[in-house]
Amino acid sequence: MLEELKKQVYEANMELPRRGLVTYTWGNASGIDRETGYFVIKPSGVEYEELTPDDLTVVDLDLNKIEGKYKPSSDSATHAQLYKKYAEIGGIVHTHSVTAASWAQAGRSIPLYGTTHADYFFGDIPCTRSLTPDEINGEYEKNTGLVIIETLEEYGIHPMHMPGILCKNHGPFTWGTDARQAVYHAAVLEEIARMALNTELINPKAALAPDSIRDKHFCRKHGANAYYGQN
Amino acid sequence: MLEELKKQVYEANMELPRRGLVTYTWGNASGIDRETGYFVIKPSGVEYEELTPDDLTVVDLDLNKIEGKYKPSSDSATHAQLYKKYAEIGGIVHTHSVTAASWAQAGRSIPLYGTTHADYFFGDIPCTRSLTPDEINGEYEKNTGLVIIETLEEYGIHPMHMPGILCKNHGPFTWGTDARQAVYHAAVLEEIARMALNTELINPKAALAPDSIRDKHFCRKHGANAYYGQN
Amino acid sequence: MLEELKKQVYEANMELPRRGLVTYTWGNASGIDRETGYFVIKPSGVEYEELTPDDLTVVDLDLNKIEGKYKPSSDSATHAQLYKKYAEIGGIVHTHSVTAASWAQAGRSIPLYGTTHADYFFGDIPCTRSLTPDEINGEYEKNTGLVIIETLEEYGIHPMHMPGILCKNHGPFTWGTDARQAVYHAAVLEEIARMALNTELINPKAALAPDSIRDKHFCRKHGANAYYGQN
Amino acid sequence: MLEELKKQVYEANMELPRRGLVTYTWGNASGIDRETGYFVIKPSGVEYEELTPDDLTVVDLDLNKIEGKYKPSSDSATHAQLYKKYAEIGGIVHTHSVTAASWAQAGRSIPLYGTTHADYFFGDIPCTRSLTPDEINGEYEKNTGLVIIETLEEYGIHPMHMPGILCKNHGPFTWGTDARQAVYHAAVLEEIARMALNTELINPKAALAPDSIRDKHFCRKHGANAYYGQN
Repeated sequence: MLEELKKQVYEANMELPRRGLVTYTWGNASGIDRETGYFVIKPSGVEYEELTPDDLTVVDLDLNKIEGKYKPSSDSATHAQLYKKYAEIGGIVHTHSVTAASWAQAGRSIPLYGTTHADYFFGDIPCTRSLTPDEINGEYEKNTGLVIIETLEEYGIHPMHMPGILCKNHGPFTWGTDARQAVYHAAVLEEIARMALNTELINPKAALAPDSIRDKHFCRKHGANAYYGQN
Repeated sequence: MLEELKKQVYEANMELPRRGLVTYTWGNASGIDRETGYFVIKPSGVEYEELTPDDLTVVDLDLNKIEGKYKPSSDSATHAQLYKKYAEIGGIVHTHSVTAASWAQAGRSIPLYGTTHADYFFGDIPCTRSLTPDEINGEYEKNTGLVIIETLEEYGIHPMHMPGILCKNHGPFTWGTDARQAVYHAAVLEEIARMALNTELINPKAALAPDSIRDKHFCRKHGANAYYGQN
Repeated sequence: MLEELKKQVYEANMELPRRGLVTYTWGNASGIDRETGYFVIKPSGVEYEELTPDDLTVVDLDLNKIEGKYKPSSDSATHAQLYKKYAEIGGIVHTHSVTAASWAQAGRSIPLYGTTHADYFFGDIPCTRSLTPDEINGEYEKNTGLVIIETLEEYGIHPMHMPGILCKNHGPFTWGTDARQAVYHAAVLEEIARMALNTELINPKAALAPDSIRDKHFCRKHGANAYYGQN
Repeated sequence: MLEELKKQVYEANMELPRRGLVTYTWGNASGIDRETGYFVIKPSGVEYEELTPDDLTVVDLDLNKIEGKYKPSSDSATHAQLYKKYAEIGGIVHTHSVTAASWAQAGRSIPLYGTTHADYFFGDIPCTRSLTPDEINGEYEKNTGLVIIETLEEYGIHPMHMPGILCKNHGPFTWGTDARQAVYHAAVLEEIARMALNTELINPKAALAPDSIRDKHFCRKHGANAYYGQN
């Protein structure tokens, strides 16, 4: 079942180590079939070198396993929360990519310093609050999804205008219309994180990019008046 | 038409990801044929892996499409301004290479700290002023070209003595006698940007290299008394 | 003799340069056969490109050579001390991986800033004290092993809950159930070291991750209630 | 003539880009035949991809060309001074490797922070003084050699105990018993430079490694009591 989706999600997962975004098994990509409500995700702790499309696990949004020989990623509950809340999301990625994870560990949102950032993320990329001990000791992965949602709602921003976030003391989650685009946003986020760190080292008093840069670049690529690319 | 130039510009574009200067589609190289006044440029938003010489777009300096199945790069208007103003420029490159873009985001010119810099750039590599909201909301890419020219003119420097610049909150543009040399300067600029950042981390009070180093190294490679290389 | 172990230890050694953890000959991996009490280790100063499984040296815990055409690694005495003290350790790795060695040179333990760290190391990764001149001028490599043990005992931590350490002004040692896992921990330690450095650059006042994060993530992967992976 | 030496020097030159130590043509390696007093060096400004052993230039210590179709490296006069002064030197390398060049631009010697450094360099790696305008405008490359010698003499250190140096605002020169070892030292110096920069970022008050570490590690690898490696 869902052979096409499995192939897509498999390719998305394999792109993560190729792009230098994951070491060993530290990451996962998933994609959802909105018709059935099932999503396909990497199995927990399986090495990328040994992964095949058939190894992927199919689960429903309540995490019942529908198909697959392996347990799904331990982060599946986080993915499920995001899929449930936001119908626009078709794919999700989690990594521990070095610089984005460093911002998460530092507990800081990534300031919008330039056009590379503005092309994809409409404003500072938020860092969530810490989970409480109760949230950590309880349904940890589900609560990780809930705090992502809480943060996006607090910012009042549409998830497709902010296709990624930093979970404090942990690392980034990104999403998109499908698993492939979620990987793309994970790679972009890591680049932006590197640039923002360098920017502050070069100029500790660096100012945010002006709002007009943010608006212009985002709208060059998104929405009715987009003129970047071939469409 | 312009088959030889297309091949050159194609090779220049492909060198950008090979050198680690562009991620995904974040960059473009162009080259001009001064006889016809047409220039060849990468199409907008097309993946490098899929690019062929025939995919390149030929436009005139007023951005009328002369040949090609795709829309030209969204930065074409920036390239056109530079070609119009400076007859010496034969090729132009734009990237978001990480460290050069970080200096642009920091809004700082890159100080001339050593001979690597002095071999190619005669003085600090300028960072432009911010564009005004009107300039951003109007003909943004054209205005980007104009602010580059404004900055070079203010510095009173010949574009072949300063074959690159940082656009504030954006990233570097470089140029040269042809597209290949413009790529070369993009790679050099990224190396210089990395060294300058490290230099300030190692010694926050690092002084500029003496003028005699700047003059000596630039003149070793450029002008009538050059003695570097085989010519 | 010990052909299977030699093959394992050979593979572990070869993984070190592939993972970018050693330059030239700066590192070594070993594995022990607890039945005979012999361990297999890289020969001293032999290039990785030329290494074959037969080049490995077999020694006993008093460093008598049991088999092999080469002298064992000059760090063998350090390995021997750890094998003698901790029966749980099946493999040991030493590297000069750049960022972990930098923390060792800085003389600082690596603070537990996030989940990547907590997944493998239960608390700050300790940096040993300096050896005294007498310890350095005497049985230096043996004393290096002893100071590692002293530090773990002072911290009161089980070596499998803290599978690595920084030797001051030197570099990291890591261990595991076998040589392969020791390499794994060497790679993880380098990633954690990079993230921790970045974290402090991004936020000089970054706080440690809460204890509940440390406990949760370590226990997700280790012990009776582990639920990460397929077991 | 000197076919064997040419092959060695060719291999040494080709190793520089493979090790990430040179970009484009920014570096050169040479080796000397002490019998004839001729040395073999990379030609000036020739791309590494196109270099063949026959392209190398043979010159005497007064820089008369003995053989070769190309002009020798513009840095030949620096090499010649070092070969003249120190009979022990058999090979020399110059690079602009990023981090070592950054220390040179910062005008700081690299402090001996740990064993990686002490294994090869017996003390801080010196940075020369600035050349005077007269020295720069005169025989610049020769004067670069002279200031290297002046610095080593001031430190009172044997060149084989300090097989490399930083030329202020420029970059590193390294040497060894032959061209291959000079390349080895260039790679080691870049690693040490990276570690020292990180060390100071991690701990701005990091102390030098104790003298006993410096002495122990250097003597483990060098001199009558060396016990590292197979000899």
